[in-house]
Amino acid sequence: MTAEPQSSPRADFTSPFLIVNPKAYLGSADTLKLALLTDELAGRFGIDVIFTAQHVDLRMVAEATKNLTVTAQHMDPIVKGRGMGHILPDSLVEAGAKAVVLNHAEHQLTLAALDATLERAREVGLMTIVCADTDAQCRAIATLGPDIMICEPTANIGTGQMDAGDYIERTTRIVKDVDPSILVIQAAGVSRGTDITRVLEQGADGSGGTSGIIKHPDWREILTEMFTAIQDFKNRA
Amino acid sequence: MTAEPQSSPRADFTSPFLIVNPKAYLGSADTLKLALLTDELAGRFGIDVIFTAQHVDLRMVAEATKNLTVTAQHMDPIVKGRGMGHILPDSLVEAGAKAVVLNHAEHQLTLAALDATLERAREVGLMTIVCADTDAQCRAIATLGPDIMICEPTANIGTGQMDAGDYIERTTRIVKDVDPSILVIQAAGVSRGTDITRVLEQGADGSGGTSGIIKHPDWREILTEMFTAIQDFKNRA
Amino acid sequence: MTAEPQSSPRADFTSPFLIVNPKAYLGSADTLKLALLTDELAGRFGIDVIFTAQHVDLRMVAEATKNLTVTAQHMDPIVKGRGMGHILPDSLVEAGAKAVVLNHAEHQLTLAALDATLERAREVGLMTIVCADTDAQCRAIATLGPDIMICEPTANIGTGQMDAGDYIERTTRIVKDVDPSILVIQAAGVSRGTDITRVLEQGADGSGGTSGIIKHPDWREILTEMFTAIQDFKNRA
Amino acid sequence: MTAEPQSSPRADFTSPFLIVNPKAYLGSADTLKLALLTDELAGRFGIDVIFTAQHVDLRMVAEATKNLTVTAQHMDPIVKGRGMGHILPDSLVEAGAKAVVLNHAEHQLTLAALDATLERAREVGLMTIVCADTDAQCRAIATLGPDIMICEPTANIGTGQMDAGDYIERTTRIVKDVDPSILVIQAAGVSRGTDITRVLEQGADGSGGTSGIIKHPDWREILTEMFTAIQDFKNRA
Repeated sequence: MTAEPQSSPRADFTSPFLIVNPKAYLGSADTLKLALLTDELAGRFGIDVIFTAQHVDLRMVAEATKNLTVTAQHMDPIVKGRGMGHILPDSLVEAGAKAVVLNHAEHQLTLAALDATLERAREVGLMTIVCADTDAQCRAIATLGPDIMICEPTANIGTGQMDAGDYIERTTRIVKDVDPSILVIQAAGVSRGTDITRVLEQGADGSGGTSGIIKHPDWREILTEMFTAIQDFKNRA
Repeated sequence: MTAEPQSSPRADFTSPFLIVNPKAYLGSADTLKLALLTDELAGRFGIDVIFTAQHVDLRMVAEATKNLTVTAQHMDPIVKGRGMGHILPDSLVEAGAKAVVLNHAEHQLTLAALDATLERAREVGLMTIVCADTDAQCRAIATLGPDIMICEPTANIGTGQMDAGDYIERTTRIVKDVDPSILVIQAAGVSRGTDITRVLEQGADGSGGTSGIIKHPDWREILTEMFTAIQDFKNRA
Repeated sequence: MTAEPQSSPRADFTSPFLIVNPKAYLGSADTLKLALLTDELAGRFGIDVIFTAQHVDLRMVAEATKNLTVTAQHMDPIVKGRGMGHILPDSLVEAGAKAVVLNHAEHQLTLAALDATLERAREVGLMTIVCADTDAQCRAIATLGPDIMICEPTANIGTGQMDAGDYIERTTRIVKDVDPSILVIQAAGVSRGTDITRVLEQGADGSGGTSGIIKHPDWREILTEMFTAIQDFKNRA
Repeated sequence: MTAEPQSSPRADFTSPFLIVNPKAYLGSADTLKLALLTDELAGRFGIDVIFTAQHVDLRMVAEATKNLTVTAQHMDPIVKGRGMGHILPDSLVEAGAKAVVLNHAEHQLTLAALDATLERAREVGLMTIVCADTDAQCRAIATLGPDIMICEPTANIGTGQMDAGDYIERTTRIVKDVDPSILVIQAAGVSRGTDITRVLEQGADGSGGTSGIIKHPDWREILTEMFTAIQDFKNRA
């Protein structure tokens, strides 16, 4: 938390940015295909990308790409030793991961485990991305000082429906009020470039998604649309 | 369960065998070092080996070795889709894993999850290795028809102390009485070649361990001792 | 397991029997109302009844009734000592509970926890009722020797839809093949007296339910219908 | 959160106060004995008391006492309906409970579950008491606005050893800095009246404990000592 910017895992990471989060939707071959395509576009657009993958695919993606922040979808608060079947943070770093997502609605942590895992992430130098749902959860997690937060109403995940009210502006502001240095991702229900434009205009630092990308019939098309939306927003700013 | 032997993931796997289970004790570089050494000895002795690794290291180990049954330390009963942070069975297979350990004392499953995960393992063609503790647990899990079982009294794990009573003979017999085709690993507290000889003589099909190998100052020495014990037992049989 | 019949918690419990399982559908006052009504009918029909209640209501129900096997909906494998917020088996007995349901689909246990909790139940003298879903789970749990099993396909719980195939006969037979002394409840989707007749004819020892009773506009009517179905089956046998 | 003081479940609760938390150490008869004794002393000293009990004993304790804030050791974020084996908040209220402890180190919750359970507590009118360990956890939970917090270093629970550093002052201040209306309990390792005096002097609003009381050979003696310490502190203030 007190590390100088130059040594922070977030040092070179710039807003606005894209998140591509295939969760468990893709096998290894498809993950690699999506990663290579995203890497190519990330390089061309000059935009930072959080790219998550199954643990088993992290090293493969890290070795095959150069413009992606390769990100684990979970890790455990363990040190070298026991922990059969749990994810050792140190090995994620050795495999080339630069960041880790924690507390996703599909893999929730106790507050004590989240606290301990954030501590381990700082020790090994991984950028931390923590998920939150309600206003209260967004505020509580912001006090823990993660590098990035994903605010999303659990009920909207995977629906292709964005929040119809002021969730995006409101939760982004809640996080920034606690700690303005935390970057905020708003991606629930995002499936088009215009959705990305909307959330960036409402204060988010990053956007992207899972099903909006994975289920699109033409990955190059939807990714190009999303990168373009981010680039346009950046140029206007 | 009803697959013909020739198509079973266990088809080419032969007793007696060794298990090398570094759990979360080793980072990627050390895991690779141990895997290469074990692979060399496995080839020289002509003995089958269950070799587990952190998920992030499975593909690396599978690509670098040729005599090991590369084994995941856990997986989740999910299909392609949601499941952020969970382990997709299909990707383990794509990464080169041939087997998976389930229900370890450090990563216990509900019976329903274990049942569903065994089903997924059969669908994707992974050999299943399930852990059990008490007599009752050994019997219950044997009815689920895993390929291999690890019977170990939880209290002895990592202690370097083997069970002083008849646990080894008794639980091995319980499993075989339910289903004689299940291979049984007895490895709790095993740290020497003579320990391996003892458990094989008492009916086990495989042995090996974690701390008994990892904490030994000379991996080549202890692995050679263990392989030799298995080879000697094999020759006597 | 080796206790003589006369000292078993199941000694006086007779098939066929009814289960009334309000889960968390009722507050204390409604639970008491349902318990008193069930108790009256149980006495009149001379039929045994498993009656579950929220932990907080167990003593109240036990003190107010005399014909019910008052049953906890869960307990933890703890002994007196630490265990903040967990359910101490010894106190259930002091409160007048005679049985406990374990491993319900809405409160699943690891196999090790189920094993340990069954052991605690035997120590304190509670009759054990364990839930299972698939054939494999029914078989595995039967080997653990509970007094009673609830076999139900998780997908049918609370739907008012009974299994359309041979689930009832098949799973009942699986359990009895492992241990003929285990009583089997089949209650998924049961909402009428004729449903109860059907499952008893197909081999079950007991039936009843949750939503089929709780959501019925006239508890006396539906309970009388269910008791009558059991009595008629008993008279025919 | 926005309820007026007069309608708050904490309206009549006054600092400094005592917490008597027998966890799962006592069966029903001993719980009643301890409750009656505490009730007598609470009345005599005119000091508020948080008294927790096993769920099964809550109604019994509430009916037998008049000066205790009868407190559940856990509850689940459910509404009337499904939830087999889970604790329904509405029934706790019907049984006479006035408060609930959440997120104890022995029964940890995910942040989302804690958030939802606090919401349910407010709906049914239960005072909320939430446990936290590290500075970061104390700060995060304080933002959720519980009525009371128990700050305790997990490593000290049940040891009879109090924190040797500035944990008590520091975490109490962290909580009050976030929300001065939250009452703070510091009780880890407290076993004597002088321990209570110390934590009250260091800023805590309440203290007491589990093993320091339960394991004392003379409950009347140790409780009197603790009540006296609180009374003396109150008189000095």
